[in-house]
Amino acid sequence: MRLSRYFLPVLKENPAEAQIVSHRYMLRAGMIKQQSAGIYSWLPLGLRVLNRIQEIVHQEQVRAGHIPLLMPTLQPADLWRESGRYDDYGQEMLRIKDRQGREMLYGPTNEEMITDIFRAHVNSYKDLPLTLYHIQWKFRDEMRPRFGVMRGREFLMKDGYNFDVDRDAALHAYNRHMVSYLRTYERMGLTAIPMRAASGPIGGDNTHEFLVLAQTGESEVFYDDRVTALKLGSREVDYDDRAEVAGVCAEFTTLYARTDETHDAGLFEQIPEEHRKVGRGIEVGQIFYFGTKYSEAMGAVVTNDKGEKVPVEMGSHGIGVSRLLGAIIEANHDDKGIIWPEGVTPFPVGIVNLKQGDAAADAACASLEKALLAKGLEPLYDDRDERAGAKFATMDLVGLPWRITVGPRGLANGVVELTSRRTGVSEELTPEAAVERIAEIYAGR
Amino acid sequence: MRLSRYFLPVLKENPAEAQIVSHRYMLRAGMIKQQSAGIYSWLPLGLRVLNRIQEIVHQEQVRAGHIPLLMPTLQPADLWRESGRYDDYGQEMLRIKDRQGREMLYGPTNEEMITDIFRAHVNSYKDLPLTLYHIQWKFRDEMRPRFGVMRGREFLMKDGYNFDVDRDAALHAYNRHMVSYLRTYERMGLTAIPMRAASGPIGGDNTHEFLVLAQTGESEVFYDDRVTALKLGSREVDYDDRAEVAGVCAEFTTLYARTDETHDAGLFEQIPEEHRKVGRGIEVGQIFYFGTKYSEAMGAVVTNDKGEKVPVEMGSHGIGVSRLLGAIIEANHDDKGIIWPEGVTPFPVGIVNLKQGDAAADAACASLEKALLAKGLEPLYDDRDERAGAKFATMDLVGLPWRITVGPRGLANGVVELTSRRTGVSEELTPEAAVERIAEIYAGR
Repeated sequence: MRLSRYFLPVLKENPAEAQIVSHRYMLRAGMIKQQSAGIYSWLPLGLRVLNRIQEIVHQEQVRAGHIPLLMPTLQPADLWRESGRYDDYGQEMLRIKDRQGREMLYGPTNEEMITDIFRAHVNSYKDLPLTLYHIQWKFRDEMRPRFGVMRGREFLMKDGYNFDVDRDAALHAYNRHMVSYLRTYERMGLTAIPMRAASGPIGGDNTHEFLVLAQTGESEVFYDDRVTALKLGSREVDYDDRAEVAGVCAEFTTLYARTDETHDAGLFEQIPEEHRKVGRGIEVGQIFYFGTKYSEAMGAVVTNDKGEKVPVEMGSHGIGVSRLLGAIIEANHDDKGIIWPEGVTPFPVGIVNLKQGDAAADAACASLEKALLAKGLEPLYDDRDERAGAKFATMDLVGLPWRITVGPRGLANGVVELTSRRTGVSEELTPEAAVERIAEIYAGR
Repeated sequence: MRLSRYFLPVLKENPAEAQIVSHRYMLRAGMIKQQSAGIYSWLPLGLRVLNRIQEIVHQEQVRAGHIPLLMPTLQPADLWRESGRYDDYGQEMLRIKDRQGREMLYGPTNEEMITDIFRAHVNSYKDLPLTLYHIQWKFRDEMRPRFGVMRGREFLMKDGYNFDVDRDAALHAYNRHMVSYLRTYERMGLTAIPMRAASGPIGGDNTHEFLVLAQTGESEVFYDDRVTALKLGSREVDYDDRAEVAGVCAEFTTLYARTDETHDAGLFEQIPEEHRKVGRGIEVGQIFYFGTKYSEAMGAVVTNDKGEKVPVEMGSHGIGVSRLLGAIIEANHDDKGIIWPEGVTPFPVGIVNLKQGDAAADAACASLEKALLAKGLEPLYDDRDERAGAKFATMDLVGLPWRITVGPRGLANGVVELTSRRTGVSEELTPEAAVERIAEIYAGR
């Protein structure tokens, strides 16, 4: 993409309304525009990251054997009356009446609707296990929307629902979600720690939140800092193998890590002092096994292998897709701008032409662009007639992990400069070698 | 995907509520489920087609140089007061009040919001031409939602908006949209004819609707049938070349083709009688040059190359993404089910195992599946323990363009059967040759 033809409305000033760094940088880098309190347009650069995050979420859900569908944003109130939540939900639910006076709502979550789909079509254990998920816009009418996409009103969420014939199978689905989430966050360059969460009025202790450590997090967290070194890495996990999946979960949940809601001072004190940490975290996901709460209320029953009709065992599992952009920026930035992890960057690499209009520099940039495109790596090429300083400032703000700088002086020696946004380290190499290097970096993406 | 692990709730009976064939088959093939009048869940198979259609739309928009962003579903009423449409729009607009009593609406279209984004960030002709588009859920509170996704209330639309410094540039953007739309529909296996449309109160004759001929179409159409033979084919069009793009448009709009709204009996009579046709059509898109209607009302001005401030010239251009599924099925089916064009099929090929549990048949199917996956062609493998007749009926209903049938008898001779859903013609060939054939068919997809 050539910047001269793109729509990247970068702001020079810090927007007054932004209180936290991710909100500030998303506005300054031309990623979002507020349309109404807590409601945003995703400008081209922001949409590219949002799409990249969705792609990773989809890939890891499909890898775990989960099946995508798509439920609508608007739901009939009657469905929520069946579960009793229509009256319970409070003012965060956006209630709507259509022209016929029918009561509807903008879905804040989808337990009722997915249970409705299930009961309409499935009635035997032979069709289980089944996990259905979607990535769809939700609405929660927050009293005080703030922090940009971190606490918006219209937000994008992945929510998945497992249906299983018994508790053991449902707990395996729970564990499968935990592992798939760990891999999802790692691919985005995030360390998201599963922390035991409060289950609320439903009871049971099978719920975990995933938290990214960040000073601006809304939750206070207490943890053994050895938990931050755990990595799933590139190991292959057989999602059908209950013991293997449970083993991974044990590995990631044995060390103490809790939010203030479930914090236990006695247990915390048992952590060796040098590993005992208190900090703040941003919640980027939650998994929850709730058994038969909705299936009983809504009559979602299956016949088990003994011929008995039993309410199906369920859980629901969410990832805050739009919120993740904020979390990733909170964890990856410096005073010049964003530093995207390679997994989610809007463009893999930027090209800065130091002397636009110089025949050799223009040709070298065009040829780099072509070579990168041929490898499926679309660069953002700053071909504007601007001074070098302004181009560097834009690239640093926008935060692409790699930058290739092209100028007449280097070209005279047959080289361009490859710079890492994260380390700031530059290296001179031939244009061909630079393309190869970028291709290697993104080979496993 | 193995059918035993998929969620494909096929219906044996014809649903009583479906009046037209596309609605009937989408319900029977487990593609959609109605959640409320005119509001649907997209079940896994339906979502695959919807995604495929979105992908084609995106690719052709990007090829034309248009830039994707994403605007939210909810919009503030004040924005629509600026254009005067908040009061004009009538009951099809779903009006909403949030917890603070602020007036909002579920966007039926986005002229106001995109103009708002433009005026906030662009003020010079140097940043033009610019065309921004998105694919987002819309809501129109139809009095009588019907025909499934053909006239739903919550529906998915691609809407794009061009911004240009003068009328000539804007007309080029209009033409660019026409060509990109022609290519989009052709890739979906559709013949969509651009027909001069009524422009309504705004005036001007620069608006065309794209209609797919079908007996169940809502519009009466009058046309010279030589128009149906026009094809863009694989020719390369330089979207920056005004004359070339205009030439393609002239080619597709010179022969008479109009809806009843713009029909001119005198002109129609001049068509040679053997080519003069009256039929019905489904509208699947519209392009519209409207000039400065919104930019004047909302103060979206740019400085031109003479330093004068002028309201920006605009147009809006839409494709009915979710509606296209219905249109494609109306144009591609028989009495056994859907017949997907290769461009949009949910799976490129189906595998039917005639004798599940037979070691040789199971192994051959698994190996076919693996070979197809290695080529990026995910098959739908019917691995259920069902009789052959039921498997064939499901495959015919679901409508994958190609089916590979695997049975012990053929395998004894080293062959499988490859069948075209459209022609019904079968051919015996080795499994390796079948994979190669499928790969060739989809090579250009």
